[in-house]
Amino acid sequence: MRVKFLNFIEKHNLVHFGDRVLLAVSGGIDSMVMLNLFHGSGVRFSVAHCNFTLRGHESDGDQEFVSQICQTMGVELFVKRFDTNAYARGNRISIQVAARELRFAWFKELCVQNGFTSVAIAHNRNDVAETMLINLCRGTGLKGLTGMSPKSNTIIRPLLFASRIEIEAYAKENGIAHREDSTNASVEYARNRIRHNVIPQLEMVNPGVVNNLYSTSLFMGQAWEEIGAKLISLRDRIRKTHDEEILYSIPLLAKEPLRQLFLLEELTALGFSPGRIVDIEQSLFAQPGKSFLSKGYRLVRDREYLVVSPLIPQDEVCLQIDMDTQSIDFPINLTFSIEDAEDNTDFPRSPGIGVFDLHALKFPLTLRNWKQGDWFIPLGMSGKKKISDLLTDLKIPLHRKEKIYVMESDNQIIWVVGYRIDNRFRVKPSTTRRFTATMD
Amino acid sequence: MRVKFLNFIEKHNLVHFGDRVLLAVSGGIDSMVMLNLFHGSGVRFSVAHCNFTLRGHESDGDQEFVSQICQTMGVELFVKRFDTNAYARGNRISIQVAARELRFAWFKELCVQNGFTSVAIAHNRNDVAETMLINLCRGTGLKGLTGMSPKSNTIIRPLLFASRIEIEAYAKENGIAHREDSTNASVEYARNRIRHNVIPQLEMVNPGVVNNLYSTSLFMGQAWEEIGAKLISLRDRIRKTHDEEILYSIPLLAKEPLRQLFLLEELTALGFSPGRIVDIEQSLFAQPGKSFLSKGYRLVRDREYLVVSPLIPQDEVCLQIDMDTQSIDFPINLTFSIEDAEDNTDFPRSPGIGVFDLHALKFPLTLRNWKQGDWFIPLGMSGKKKISDLLTDLKIPLHRKEKIYVMESDNQIIWVVGYRIDNRFRVKPSTTRRFTATMD
Repeated sequence: MRVKFLNFIEKHNLVHFGDRVLLAVSGGIDSMVMLNLFHGSGVRFSVAHCNFTLRGHESDGDQEFVSQICQTMGVELFVKRFDTNAYARGNRISIQVAARELRFAWFKELCVQNGFTSVAIAHNRNDVAETMLINLCRGTGLKGLTGMSPKSNTIIRPLLFASRIEIEAYAKENGIAHREDSTNASVEYARNRIRHNVIPQLEMVNPGVVNNLYSTSLFMGQAWEEIGAKLISLRDRIRKTHDEEILYSIPLLAKEPLRQLFLLEELTALGFSPGRIVDIEQSLFAQPGKSFLSKGYRLVRDREYLVVSPLIPQDEVCLQIDMDTQSIDFPINLTFSIEDAEDNTDFPRSPGIGVFDLHALKFPLTLRNWKQGDWFIPLGMSGKKKISDLLTDLKIPLHRKEKIYVMESDNQIIWVVGYRIDNRFRVKPSTTRRFTATMD
Repeated sequence: MRVKFLNFIEKHNLVHFGDRVLLAVSGGIDSMVMLNLFHGSGVRFSVAHCNFTLRGHESDGDQEFVSQICQTMGVELFVKRFDTNAYARGNRISIQVAARELRFAWFKELCVQNGFTSVAIAHNRNDVAETMLINLCRGTGLKGLTGMSPKSNTIIRPLLFASRIEIEAYAKENGIAHREDSTNASVEYARNRIRHNVIPQLEMVNPGVVNNLYSTSLFMGQAWEEIGAKLISLRDRIRKTHDEEILYSIPLLAKEPLRQLFLLEELTALGFSPGRIVDIEQSLFAQPGKSFLSKGYRLVRDREYLVVSPLIPQDEVCLQIDMDTQSIDFPINLTFSIEDAEDNTDFPRSPGIGVFDLHALKFPLTLRNWKQGDWFIPLGMSGKKKISDLLTDLKIPLHRKEKIYVMESDNQIIWVVGYRIDNRFRVKPSTTRRFTATMD
């Protein structure tokens, strides 16, 4: 392990003679193994520990633990406490993003003030594999598959040679103390599902899947270098900004062979999903007027330009869906269609597809978070049912309940999205036009 | 569904006026839904059914079923029986590959003789998503993520607009009869694991994962168009062949920025894994002499060239591992290293890593399939144990047992690869040099 570590540092030129490295050490197994490997490696280093004060006594315990180890080792330690919750609220960002911003701002400061040449982060190969799979789930292009570099600017990742199994084996072998983060199991829902349920299954298909995903990420990085540079030069030709709007020239896009990849990288950054970008690309060759919504932006296929304008941010989700809205990417991916109903026995029925009698609806519809007190009349029933009871019946876990949305017409719930439509708005034998909303 | 189907055909120009399409219909749900959608669509078509005679009465039942439906519908049907087993044995290929070759050769014949303009295959979006995930498990580059096109030459895939859920819903809704393939559960081990265990987990991370993987495959296709063309032109400059050998010029590769991607596409086609290709690329800048093995090829980093030569094919795996073999990709991925043993309490211990006392070994080692009667002395024990008993103790399912390999030194088993090393060859306090084999 130690030999592999030193080889990896040398192979990727992570540390040069005379460098001073700042190790980001949380107290978890990865960073404690990194600390152990740096200790006695001949590299000059100090340690930085962030106390994000998110887990009360536990956070303070981590800080105390890292302090003691550094003292025993005789290693210089920097510690800082952050009010992460307040920062996240103040900047209307998630706790994760807040923690990342605070941490990197402080590391930068430490580097400038103390002459550190790089900051070492204890990412391993499983982190790369998990991130690739999460990105694939959420929809991604080339960039999202490029993984993490062993070195990007002043950040180095000297543990990228190792898988989690190797790190755990080394920690056990060498009695390396570390602290478990009790929020690991809950904070990062997607990552934990990938880690505990998906990767072990994939390993039964191929035991080398983690290493293979890592290798693929390296190759994707090279493909991206080749293509990314072209996309940046396209940007100058095709894109212009006007006040808060971004405009993409339709005639120039239409004749550009790389337009799909270009739109992919431009628009996923604005929250549009890859599926939506396929639709947006096709709208280039259709009539003007189609519009698409993402979390923060509205894109309209105008005459000469695709026009992207920011939506006003809101705390609670409350989106309006007009009769001509094609699709939205936020808070969930939905596409909408209207069609003549010839045969009302023949249309898709699935919890992910809401099919309604168009004439029973009043536009604009509203999509919002469900709230206590909400009720509807489930399909096939005649009485009211509280949504809280429905969710209990369906055994929806708490952390998913927050992400349940309802669609309303004129203040009446027509669909508990992804679960059940309302009986009053269902398709009847008399229905002549159907409105369909499809999750994808 | 019908509207989506017709839109998809139109959008991708799958069928032109006057075309005659040959539908490949197995009798499974996908192809029966395809048949239903084509029926009454206005497109002229006939049906082809392959009886691979692999499942006895069941295969004949499928043929009978498809015949009856076609008769009822008044659709022209072509049927052919194949002796797939004999063809596979005769050509030393797998049953799957044999079935594919036989089927496409026959389709081609039917097109020429009967004037069909294209062959329609009932692949859906889940097939694309599953293939991408399988390729990622096995290690892949850009090409392996490009998915399937709605149209490639004379093959069209008119069901690529739909996910399996939509197809199942439509079949149920419209009472479309179909036959289940009883081998589905066992034949394609990897695909079934991905289908039943992995995708449902990923859908809990993001319900749109199947559509997102499909969209990503479209974008990867475009990226591949851009890069693939360049790699083909590189080939002319960098590669030459000599008898059965392929030679890649090292000086030319060394200064080519796309060399990693180039080697990836060249060498994965010869059975080398992406991880191995990273190593091969690095060997360009190291001393000559390193060698790498894949299923069918040996690659040697010579002075001026990377030299790839075919191995003589053998029925049973029996590979020799020399002291200077760096790694093999077949029948499993293994890397080898030798190191001085300073502290014999400190080395990785995991079933996937075999660590041995170098001086107890006699090279070349042999890697081969286990066979009845094999025995070894498991680590920590003093008596012999039959490998068949070990596999029973470990509850290894039958279909995996065939893929268990043993490593031998001088006709003595030193490792049941991936499970347990032999006690006689273990690292002891007196060990001065260690030989390590790592699965990846």
